[in-house]
Amino acid sequence: MNLAAEIALAHRLADAARTEIVPLFRSGVEIEVKADASPVTVADRAAEEAMRRLIEAEFSGDGIHGEEFGVKDGVTGRQWVLDPIDGTTAFLAGRPIFATLIALLMDGFPVLGMIDQPITKERWLGTAGQATVFNGDPVRTRQCRDLSTASIATSGPHYFSQAEGDAFMALAAKTDHRRMVMGGDCYNYACLASGFIDVVCEANLKLHDFAALVPVVEGAGGLMCDWSGEPLHAGSDGTVLALGDPARLEDALEALGS
Amino acid sequence: MNLAAEIALAHRLADAARTEIVPLFRSGVEIEVKADASPVTVADRAAEEAMRRLIEAEFSGDGIHGEEFGVKDGVTGRQWVLDPIDGTTAFLAGRPIFATLIALLMDGFPVLGMIDQPITKERWLGTAGQATVFNGDPVRTRQCRDLSTASIATSGPHYFSQAEGDAFMALAAKTDHRRMVMGGDCYNYACLASGFIDVVCEANLKLHDFAALVPVVEGAGGLMCDWSGEPLHAGSDGTVLALGDPARLEDALEALGS
Repeated sequence: MNLAAEIALAHRLADAARTEIVPLFRSGVEIEVKADASPVTVADRAAEEAMRRLIEAEFSGDGIHGEEFGVKDGVTGRQWVLDPIDGTTAFLAGRPIFATLIALLMDGFPVLGMIDQPITKERWLGTAGQATVFNGDPVRTRQCRDLSTASIATSGPHYFSQAEGDAFMALAAKTDHRRMVMGGDCYNYACLASGFIDVVCEANLKLHDFAALVPVVEGAGGLMCDWSGEPLHAGSDGTVLALGDPARLEDALEALGS
Repeated sequence: MNLAAEIALAHRLADAARTEIVPLFRSGVEIEVKADASPVTVADRAAEEAMRRLIEAEFSGDGIHGEEFGVKDGVTGRQWVLDPIDGTTAFLAGRPIFATLIALLMDGFPVLGMIDQPITKERWLGTAGQATVFNGDPVRTRQCRDLSTASIATSGPHYFSQAEGDAFMALAAKTDHRRMVMGGDCYNYACLASGFIDVVCEANLKLHDFAALVPVVEGAGGLMCDWSGEPLHAGSDGTVLALGDPARLEDALEALGS
């Protein structure tokens, strides 16, 4: 699969999002509340609009699915999935660990993913069949010989239902929980791809939250799936498990009670 | 109180810590486990050693209290309190939201505090009676007219006992919990000082975790106390409440059940 033109576009999309987001970081932007009670700002909207314009100009037949402006149907079987600011709460709190997420799906499965941190200027790019790169250099997940030595991350307990929280805690108890990392949204998956975190486990993620992460993690040698061990796609149930070392899949799913 | 020499030294201490920490970030340093089960690395130790050497050379009569190398008694009634890497789990996970903490205590009360993020090169300095500065420029906390509009942060539920967790959740429920921030250790207090977070609430902090935060937050117009509303000092019980707007103190303590 030759995605050279799509990769070039993804870089321009992330650059365009940076242009909108950087001046608004720590600027005291006004916070609005969406129908689902999550916060949004002019930075989210401006970044998504800038990216949609570029996609429509270059690949007008492709579908677009953006967090803020919804779905535009396409005619090619391809869909760009955009989350202009994943981690809006981190953005609002002045923490530089949010990111712009850009994914390209073919027939519902992600084949290209980008995680871009505008403030620290960090960019992870994953493409099906190619090694994931961080600011242009290849990165690899790290080996994890036993779950008891694993570091685990999640965005926070308030994103879980009671049953999901119990399953997460059962998995976390099997890991080295002294090093448990809270908060961070997509940034945790980027750190996993670079070999600094072993497990990320979350629930209730939407397509725009996880689509871009899959090629980044898998191109670095890791594995992403739902809590049943199934590959992630447009119809997934929102449970997400990322492993730096795919050899730990069976242990992790067993701990989750899957 | 003229602390010009002490401020100049604090800058050199933070510079020295940066020199040790930056090359080891994302380098795959080995993790050791301390007696209290918390992780430590050569970066923590090297940064503290470098700082202790500078203090001993310049203010040999002052006491030193460091996270990794313990207490050296002094004869001046002054004590330097050092945490070379606050947020070692974040450091190990590749997240640039840990920091070096440097405080100067007089008779047990912090009068100078520095929060230094070595990777993003962000430095907050607070001094008794002076405005807190961020990379040299004054910063202010923001007003919060009602707790229901406040954003709240904490490092994670796993740092609380059951009773402390219940108290925290009672306070969090009174805030705008859509914007609750998890993880981040000292970095949340720095973001509060800069006006991007309204409340930070934690328990089980040690002197080296909170001493540097007090002058930073209070010099920016905020308030720090324990969960009984008492000022923080060397003998505090480890509960910590930080408010960007001191006018919300009564509401916050009431929500905590204090």
